[in-house]
Amino acid sequence: MIRVDRTDLDFQLFSMLPGAQLSGFPRFSDYDRTAIRAVLDTAERIAMEHFLPHAADVDRNEPVFADGEVEIDARVGDALAAYRDAGFFGAGFDEEWGGTQMPETVRSALSFIFSMANIGTAGYPFLTHGAANLIAAFGSDEQKQTYLTPMVEGRFFGTMCLSEPDAGSSLADITTRAELDDDGNYRITGRKMWISGGDQEISENIVHMVLAKIPGGPPGVKGISLFIVPKYLMIGDGLRGARNGVALAGLNHKMGYRGTTNAALNFGEDVPCVGYLVGEKHKGLSYMFRMMNEARIGVGLGATALAAAGYQVSLAYARERPQGRHPDGKDAKSSQVPIIEHADIRRLLLAQKAAVEGALSLLFFCASLVDTVRMESDPIKRRETETLLDLLTPIAKSWPSEFCLEANKHAIQVLGGYGYTQDYPVERLYRDNRLNPIHEGTHGIQGLDLLGRKVMQQGGAGLKALAGRIMADVQAANEIENLSGHASMLASHLGETIATTRKLITAAAVNPRAALANATTYLDMLGHVVIAWMWLKQATLAARALAGDADQHFMSGKIAACRYFFSHELPKARTQRALLDRLDDTTLGMKPEWF
Amino acid sequence: MIRVDRTDLDFQLFSMLPGAQLSGFPRFSDYDRTAIRAVLDTAERIAMEHFLPHAADVDRNEPVFADGEVEIDARVGDALAAYRDAGFFGAGFDEEWGGTQMPETVRSALSFIFSMANIGTAGYPFLTHGAANLIAAFGSDEQKQTYLTPMVEGRFFGTMCLSEPDAGSSLADITTRAELDDDGNYRITGRKMWISGGDQEISENIVHMVLAKIPGGPPGVKGISLFIVPKYLMIGDGLRGARNGVALAGLNHKMGYRGTTNAALNFGEDVPCVGYLVGEKHKGLSYMFRMMNEARIGVGLGATALAAAGYQVSLAYARERPQGRHPDGKDAKSSQVPIIEHADIRRLLLAQKAAVEGALSLLFFCASLVDTVRMESDPIKRRETETLLDLLTPIAKSWPSEFCLEANKHAIQVLGGYGYTQDYPVERLYRDNRLNPIHEGTHGIQGLDLLGRKVMQQGGAGLKALAGRIMADVQAANEIENLSGHASMLASHLGETIATTRKLITAAAVNPRAALANATTYLDMLGHVVIAWMWLKQATLAARALAGDADQHFMSGKIAACRYFFSHELPKARTQRALLDRLDDTTLGMKPEWF
Repeated sequence: MIRVDRTDLDFQLFSMLPGAQLSGFPRFSDYDRTAIRAVLDTAERIAMEHFLPHAADVDRNEPVFADGEVEIDARVGDALAAYRDAGFFGAGFDEEWGGTQMPETVRSALSFIFSMANIGTAGYPFLTHGAANLIAAFGSDEQKQTYLTPMVEGRFFGTMCLSEPDAGSSLADITTRAELDDDGNYRITGRKMWISGGDQEISENIVHMVLAKIPGGPPGVKGISLFIVPKYLMIGDGLRGARNGVALAGLNHKMGYRGTTNAALNFGEDVPCVGYLVGEKHKGLSYMFRMMNEARIGVGLGATALAAAGYQVSLAYARERPQGRHPDGKDAKSSQVPIIEHADIRRLLLAQKAAVEGALSLLFFCASLVDTVRMESDPIKRRETETLLDLLTPIAKSWPSEFCLEANKHAIQVLGGYGYTQDYPVERLYRDNRLNPIHEGTHGIQGLDLLGRKVMQQGGAGLKALAGRIMADVQAANEIENLSGHASMLASHLGETIATTRKLITAAAVNPRAALANATTYLDMLGHVVIAWMWLKQATLAARALAGDADQHFMSGKIAACRYFFSHELPKARTQRALLDRLDDTTLGMKPEWF
Repeated sequence: MIRVDRTDLDFQLFSMLPGAQLSGFPRFSDYDRTAIRAVLDTAERIAMEHFLPHAADVDRNEPVFADGEVEIDARVGDALAAYRDAGFFGAGFDEEWGGTQMPETVRSALSFIFSMANIGTAGYPFLTHGAANLIAAFGSDEQKQTYLTPMVEGRFFGTMCLSEPDAGSSLADITTRAELDDDGNYRITGRKMWISGGDQEISENIVHMVLAKIPGGPPGVKGISLFIVPKYLMIGDGLRGARNGVALAGLNHKMGYRGTTNAALNFGEDVPCVGYLVGEKHKGLSYMFRMMNEARIGVGLGATALAAAGYQVSLAYARERPQGRHPDGKDAKSSQVPIIEHADIRRLLLAQKAAVEGALSLLFFCASLVDTVRMESDPIKRRETETLLDLLTPIAKSWPSEFCLEANKHAIQVLGGYGYTQDYPVERLYRDNRLNPIHEGTHGIQGLDLLGRKVMQQGGAGLKALAGRIMADVQAANEIENLSGHASMLASHLGETIATTRKLITAAAVNPRAALANATTYLDMLGHVVIAWMWLKQATLAARALAGDADQHFMSGKIAACRYFFSHELPKARTQRALLDRLDDTTLGMKPEWF
């Protein structure tokens, strides 16, 4: 019953993103609509045939650590082989290194489809993509030859090794060391934690991208360097040599995402561990941050895909399950109605639709900004795009993580008791999605990133860029009779948001602790404004399409979901701004000993 | 790290409930403060020694159905033996039938402690209590002799058999039949679903309380009768005879509450199944409803206990885990602070504290109303109390189910990645709590019960009674300087709520479907007003106690949590009323084919 809504994907990619945004750069000239649809056809087929069928099983029988190795359901490897054979590991990378130069927008749609089907198995290529991205951007040609090429081919997988048992949110405090050896390479010692895909026997090799400190460097985040640490040393000509000194210390047993191994790794404990410096010394964290936007958008996409899967399952169930009668038709002899007839079930479905399709619009928009930042030759346009992307990234990561999790909660509720059992996938999707507010920067960290950094930088240029884009769409919506009310509502919210932000920026100069105390509330508030914008845009396009020969049901649904978001969700932002406006110090004022 | 906050239990029982409410009736004369504390000491000891240690294991290794029997971890039976030996199965029942006549308030505190420790194992006595309650209220003396006495002794367990595979929320549509046999008893045929404790080998017998229709009766809910269906037939003098024709069809595999078996049962499929009519024919559902208040308060208590457990775990973690620095002290050479220092972690902890202790106040208050309804001799006072209890019950069931689940989500967030693993109990508590918005009437059903029935009946007497109680506490709070702002805020919210309710009642007379379309929003809104009331009351008592020699930290925490609820939570109710006031028809207007 997990179904990819291709009508909506078409709408999101081809109506919401003008051609120029989708594939307007020469690099992407192969990706016209026909080619994009063909890619997604292939993705959907592989996802449904190879990824979906074992999703429930790997959740129930998670990978185990036995005899120093990881045992995973063989179907995971089979699915990844099909993914590799389709050339999808090369999505986005340069042709020079074997890639297919797929636009980030299209790669996002591909990601979305595989995550819907089986987020656990999809984890391996996504991590590989992130690791390979770092090498593509900052590695030497030799490193690209040795590691990037086999990753693009899907023969080597990758991981990101940032966190440690005692340093998660605070990377400044990592203790993993990298000491220069006589051969010009480094010896890595330390422990890493929460490493997704940290070990497995599926790929020929694993390329760990490791953050470590070179002794004598600056303290804190400015003394962090980035290293390639392969599981097996490469001995030239693509030949695999001995095991490197990175060892699996144990697997974490999680409540979800159970198909993706998550490991504690020891570096250089029994066997010396060789690491190869990427780029320059002490620049590791800045490299990571330059790839962080994509990684964080990827988390938001995963969260959205999980909610999309739950939405489809609960929608199908609601159409078929008879139960109860309308409040004005209680005659017990009358037949029962399908539960989709009940207002509260429609609310639960509308909330899911609003979260899924609102988030998806934002994520594809952000992906199009990633493409523009990479390809745009005009430095002013590029800079403006980058500023906007920087601002939107914490929202693109967090809003879906919070509200698409809520959508998964609603999917269970639609199914009632059945939803609480393993007979349906909705409980698993809910467990999976609970990870997303935690990894790649917790919800709280995203709030601090947004309010304490992104909003403040360049004199508020990010918010200015956002406001410009929103107002252009407000004007367009204003011309449509049924949407002008929503348009002016969004304009008011935007104006108030800017005023609130100014207050916070002023306050931060004096008392950053007080100004940032409600940063998470700011994150959720601005997120709602941004998603409202995405819905207004969708409704505007739908209203225009309704006048033509478009799918009337589909377009009416878009307008109704927009209305839902504006009536049920957006007003919450005003309540949140009241709290922010008065620099509410309730949480700061609560003393630890009072708990 | 799961710890019972006995200081708060003392506050909730002895400060929040005046003596007259707690044990003011002659029936409860044995329960003075010393006796109540002794009961809770015993409960805490048994809960921590016998219930808590196997909680994680039964979650991981749920009961299995093998060779027609249910296999459960032996420690579940051991724990229940300790519970039985303490006499707790008899809590609340008449001494005549072997009970200890414990007030419902104290029994609720007992429940709360066991649910915190292990909600799965605690499920068996709680279900037994509910089933025994029905027999105590409506059974014949012979039925009491045969079934109630051994249940009160903890030798027989009980279940509630309402739902069927095709009838969950809509009990009018159950199809289980009861046909009169020559011996004057009934033969039951049909299938029941979601039967918690539906089968096990721990107790000597299982007493199923089964809803079924006697052919020829009125259609719908008015043709439902209640039957005792024992697993083993009783042949007189307390002797157990042959197996009755009730058979385990299968166990449901749930995402939580995994220690409590949940079964599909077949009645009279291969072997005839004997059922004994309880009370009169066709009155089964009204009997159920008269016991429903307690059952629903019990669900709220379970939800609150799960959140309390998560709160304690996350609080202990937050005090100990060093991570990061303050926004105004970023020097990487300075040492890290415990995460409880961060405003956002305090928010996550305050949100949990506000949910747990706010809900607990409401639940104990409702339990005191249950005691009053049973014991009060003045019919006018009794009627007023009953009306108030009827109104508050859907809130007491639903508010904790929704917001204490949210609290469990926050507990995971405080622990970050660790919270997502099985190394800590917070992920399990979150999975457990996801059940509570579903069973004993879903969240949506509670909304319809509240707005469509409880608010409407007796010309709005329930809301009037509630308003009277709230305003008395508002006046008391008004006399305390720091609380008068909160007091007038609550008074405004109450006034607006009454106005909104009047609009909805008027609208319902014309168009019930439109008036009830946002019943769930009404439920959440009124719930927030009621919990704000509970917090204002707690803060008032705490402010008074602060003037004396009370625990200054504890009392300051109460006032801070009240402030949190009024600043971060209560304002949401106004946004919800705006939706209700305009009879928002967004959900009703969404056509099924538009999804």
